[in-house]
Amino acid sequence: MSNRTATHKVVRVTLDSRTEMDDHLVKESPLTIYYNDKELVTLLCTPEYMEDLGLGFLYSEGLLKEPSHVTTTRLDEEKGIIWIETNKTDFIAEKLFLKRYITTGCGKGTTFYNVMDSALVKNLDTLLTIIGDDVFQLMRDFQHNSELFKETGGVHSCALCDSKKIIIFREDIGRHNALDKIIGNCFKEKTTLDDKIVLTSGRISSEILLKVAKIGVSIVISRSAPTDLAVKLANELGVTIVGFVRGNRMNVYTHPQRIKE
Amino acid sequence: MSNRTATHKVVRVTLDSRTEMDDHLVKESPLTIYYNDKELVTLLCTPEYMEDLGLGFLYSEGLLKEPSHVTTTRLDEEKGIIWIETNKTDFIAEKLFLKRYITTGCGKGTTFYNVMDSALVKNLDTLLTIIGDDVFQLMRDFQHNSELFKETGGVHSCALCDSKKIIIFREDIGRHNALDKIIGNCFKEKTTLDDKIVLTSGRISSEILLKVAKIGVSIVISRSAPTDLAVKLANELGVTIVGFVRGNRMNVYTHPQRIKE
Repeated sequence: MSNRTATHKVVRVTLDSRTEMDDHLVKESPLTIYYNDKELVTLLCTPEYMEDLGLGFLYSEGLLKEPSHVTTTRLDEEKGIIWIETNKTDFIAEKLFLKRYITTGCGKGTTFYNVMDSALVKNLDTLLTIIGDDVFQLMRDFQHNSELFKETGGVHSCALCDSKKIIIFREDIGRHNALDKIIGNCFKEKTTLDDKIVLTSGRISSEILLKVAKIGVSIVISRSAPTDLAVKLANELGVTIVGFVRGNRMNVYTHPQRIKE
Repeated sequence: MSNRTATHKVVRVTLDSRTEMDDHLVKESPLTIYYNDKELVTLLCTPEYMEDLGLGFLYSEGLLKEPSHVTTTRLDEEKGIIWIETNKTDFIAEKLFLKRYITTGCGKGTTFYNVMDSALVKNLDTLLTIIGDDVFQLMRDFQHNSELFKETGGVHSCALCDSKKIIIFREDIGRHNALDKIIGNCFKEKTTLDDKIVLTSGRISSEILLKVAKIGVSIVISRSAPTDLAVKLANELGVTIVGFVRGNRMNVYTHPQRIKE
């Protein structure tokens, strides 16, 4: 059992038996982000890589631009609070954040959000390619890595890869959190991203697509399906969406030139 | 193909072939909710039962209490806008909504949210029970109903049942939306809920649990897992969580007295 899971007594019921046993549940904990001493947001997440989650969330929301702008980060894991201080306050980004969170609720995305964000994302005309067989192999490795899921059945996985191997792998109860944890890590490490690929266990929605495009990643792969809105945005933004990778079969929804034989 | 899906050309790639074909994608559309002439929130959803979604969302957020308070609802399906007018403005609920959506982001839930909402939800000491075998049968019917999922692989399902059969079944790209569509329908129809059961295809998070408890439903069933926080809240609030219903096997996480032999 990892510290990402908690043990809980359950009653296992079958057609003819009823047994009390221990089960492992994935932990769900609040992480409150203070940005320059202001309480900004509370996320519910799997409590690990919380600094990366804080940084990744702020980057995804446009509130952080450069690692050099961050002066301090302090995490109280016990209380689930992270304080991130910067030497640059972006008042416009802050206002947009508040406006978005008032008018859109939930990071659930909006017309406002989409229009704004697609306008900010530049078209990705990367020359990155990947061989079809390597997609199948990456997905096999990805599935193999999904240990927390196997243990608890309750999380999403996300990975950053190059065209041959997985570089960072994260799991979280939220699809967005898992991706933000990766984005936060890349932000800190100043990882080059235009030659990288994102794998996700979940559906590719418009919001996931925009997050991926925003960091300059031009191939996103899932064993699940994209939505029609994600496909439209990917078409415009130059992102290759690969879905339904199962066994030795996959669907390429947009910009198939990046998938080589 | 239903009007919930869109057709899109995909390239199906296998180890030794590459074929262009049509694929059905689940639609993802914005629904902007105006509450008493104020723009409140934009949800991304599967575009059907949008009036129910609007009403259910407002009810879940505490902004609607009684059907008789609603004076008009007007839906522009094309533009994805719904206007809901009431003869009662709850300023406190509105402020709480804004506060929540500012400080918590995303309906992603928060300590604030949880503390507030658990305080508002009364302990559910219903005498409702269900026979174990009937849980297995309900889940088989539920799986059988999940047509949109089968077609597109990209949505969550949610159902309201009594102890023998499914009464309402909804699908949406969002777990929360699917449940809110059901809540909105029950709100309009003044459905009695203390003898009902909620089935969901997704993980039971703290937020799903709170929504279910808030409408007075005391049994929630999933083929997926609950989080530890959902289990803690269910323990306190008197809700029975049944998870991992697969075939003739299930785990009862809380208040197992409601599952009879």
